[in-house]
Amino acid sequence: MSREWNEEKDPEFIARLADCLGFDKERVHHLFEKDYLARNWGKYEYLLRFDKEISHIERGTVLYEKDSSFEIIMGFPKIRRAMVLDPTIKKHFIGLEKVAVEEKMNGYNVRIATANEEIIAITRSGYICPYTTQKAKEKLNLKFFEDFPEFVLYGEIVGPDNPYVSKDIYNVESVEFYIFDIREKNSGKPLSISKKQEILEKYGFFQVRFFGEIPLETAPKEIEKIIRELGEKEYEGVVIKDPEMILSQLKYTSSQSNCSDLRHAFKFYNETGRDYMLSRIVREGFQTVEWKEKDAEFKKRCMQLGESILDPLRESIRSVKDGQRIYEEARIRVRDLKTVADFEDYLKRLGVDAVFEEPQAVGEEYLVKIRKLNKSTSDKTQAIWQGELW
Amino acid sequence: MSREWNEEKDPEFIARLADCLGFDKERVHHLFEKDYLARNWGKYEYLLRFDKEISHIERGTVLYEKDSSFEIIMGFPKIRRAMVLDPTIKKHFIGLEKVAVEEKMNGYNVRIATANEEIIAITRSGYICPYTTQKAKEKLNLKFFEDFPEFVLYGEIVGPDNPYVSKDIYNVESVEFYIFDIREKNSGKPLSISKKQEILEKYGFFQVRFFGEIPLETAPKEIEKIIRELGEKEYEGVVIKDPEMILSQLKYTSSQSNCSDLRHAFKFYNETGRDYMLSRIVREGFQTVEWKEKDAEFKKRCMQLGESILDPLRESIRSVKDGQRIYEEARIRVRDLKTVADFEDYLKRLGVDAVFEEPQAVGEEYLVKIRKLNKSTSDKTQAIWQGELW
Repeated sequence: MSREWNEEKDPEFIARLADCLGFDKERVHHLFEKDYLARNWGKYEYLLRFDKEISHIERGTVLYEKDSSFEIIMGFPKIRRAMVLDPTIKKHFIGLEKVAVEEKMNGYNVRIATANEEIIAITRSGYICPYTTQKAKEKLNLKFFEDFPEFVLYGEIVGPDNPYVSKDIYNVESVEFYIFDIREKNSGKPLSISKKQEILEKYGFFQVRFFGEIPLETAPKEIEKIIRELGEKEYEGVVIKDPEMILSQLKYTSSQSNCSDLRHAFKFYNETGRDYMLSRIVREGFQTVEWKEKDAEFKKRCMQLGESILDPLRESIRSVKDGQRIYEEARIRVRDLKTVADFEDYLKRLGVDAVFEEPQAVGEEYLVKIRKLNKSTSDKTQAIWQGELW
Repeated sequence: MSREWNEEKDPEFIARLADCLGFDKERVHHLFEKDYLARNWGKYEYLLRFDKEISHIERGTVLYEKDSSFEIIMGFPKIRRAMVLDPTIKKHFIGLEKVAVEEKMNGYNVRIATANEEIIAITRSGYICPYTTQKAKEKLNLKFFEDFPEFVLYGEIVGPDNPYVSKDIYNVESVEFYIFDIREKNSGKPLSISKKQEILEKYGFFQVRFFGEIPLETAPKEIEKIIRELGEKEYEGVVIKDPEMILSQLKYTSSQSNCSDLRHAFKFYNETGRDYMLSRIVREGFQTVEWKEKDAEFKKRCMQLGESILDPLRESIRSVKDGQRIYEEARIRVRDLKTVADFEDYLKRLGVDAVFEEPQAVGEEYLVKIRKLNKSTSDKTQAIWQGELW
């Protein structure tokens, strides 16, 4: 990627940035050199992003100049996982009487905020997604950003017309924004659960499902029940929070969600990280032991695990045998075809190998199917069918 | 480990060694510095071993001084894997009329030879195992080594009294040596299959099972049948060879062997390599597609895969929950308790955390149970049960 800006030539800029971050100037230089701190492009070039976690700053954090200083939109805080519910929850939230439990939805994370008086939708990695930004402008009550320019919405985008994690499970026709946190710019400080809910309700935003506040003592048992119910609908799991949002959050997921991840992972077996696969398998082991499963349940879990692995593997291996290439299908829905062009350019910039089909008119809008090609798995599988050795 | 020998101080030795290997002296120095070339210890200190593949020299290759030069015992050649039988075999052995098919047994690899007029059993990594060496002296016809001091036996040790890969599947009461190759010292050149068989027979050695020479054209189909039969007995698979031993060999394994590997891997889920796990899973995918399995067979394979993963995982997670540590059990059988002491010392040198139980007299011999502790999986699992996050 060509660099249009050259920070190294602007010592005054570097000095101000170093001052804002509390780093020395050498370090800021180094971050730019390594591309740990980099710019978005085109009209979003003014937005810097952290491509790596640096000190207390999450990867994906975005910042931009404002009034001769900088404004920061903090990245998504990492949410650590409980491998077993008991004693993990009790230990982690020790001292609290109750924990707040919210649904963890299976979509993609996005932050929505205003920067330079412009609405932007920022991905987990700190890119400005033109498609999501356009959807945010169409679907969200923008009055919120006028009233609270200092706040950032942290949410999940779900639904079939989503180019990243396309699921049909949520009864969403196209795409929808479900908000789970409101955080302040600069500090990244979150609002308490009750304050957040009050504001989201007032502005008519969709919120992730709230299962209430649950006494710490009974939380593991209650959450087990919630997880079983969510699992039946193929829903992902829960995030367990301090109602005041002071202690860090925990997550826990359903077996169905683990298996769904595995189905995706093994379809693209040569590009998925080994640790990603293993961690999902190991979760199944802990869950069956913690839930003291009897023989019939255990057999069912084994079968589900085996099928979640072997079925997509077989499908990929077979389709390559039949001369096809392996790809992931997604789609987007737009009012204006310019958004398609912008999004196509955006994916190209990110190095994603995607083929866009012809737009199909649907009512006032257009649907565009996208095939994201998985070159590594396709090539490897093809080579094996041609007699290559492992 | 303290170095008793100091090669750096003996430039004349380095010069001769460099000359023998065809390397320059600097490179030999470097190999010693990096411990890529290292010594065995105690009475076997005179035996150098390659701890890494260097140029054309396999890892595990051993060499020692003889008549002011060196004699080399080449390591086990890597045998590459056919992921699918057709077209891989036809392509790899192109130009041959027939291929020789031998059973690949599931034990541990060892080379037996004389060095300095002493019988030694060398592991895959180039260590001299005192237990295996003692067993070789007891069980093999040593006349062979007098008649052919220039030859090395390459074999598999199987049976329950084997401290590395303990299997009860071969109808071997204690341990047995099954020979699969005879190779020349220095060059590593193997005898042809027929010559090898003739000599092994003459000296009364056990040989790995020979399935005959099979026309190249029908080999994939024939080998599929052999693999199915072997699999039913939980046997591992086959090695496919050029009868003249000029072209390199190929291997192919049964589903049962893949699953057996997975059972072992997931029992010690935190120490097993992720690639080891994945490769065995992917083999199942290719086999089910190549063998065009119908629904019932496929479901069975899914169930077997799921159980091979989840069953050992559950067992390990459960036993740690119940306050136990995870270990691997093995046993050895000896005539002389000195062999136990030597073997215990040997494992300690290799950094294996093993607990030896009291020897039990059985006839003229002693059985000793060994528990090899898996600290990493035990610790990780225990931490999770105490509420640690992933």
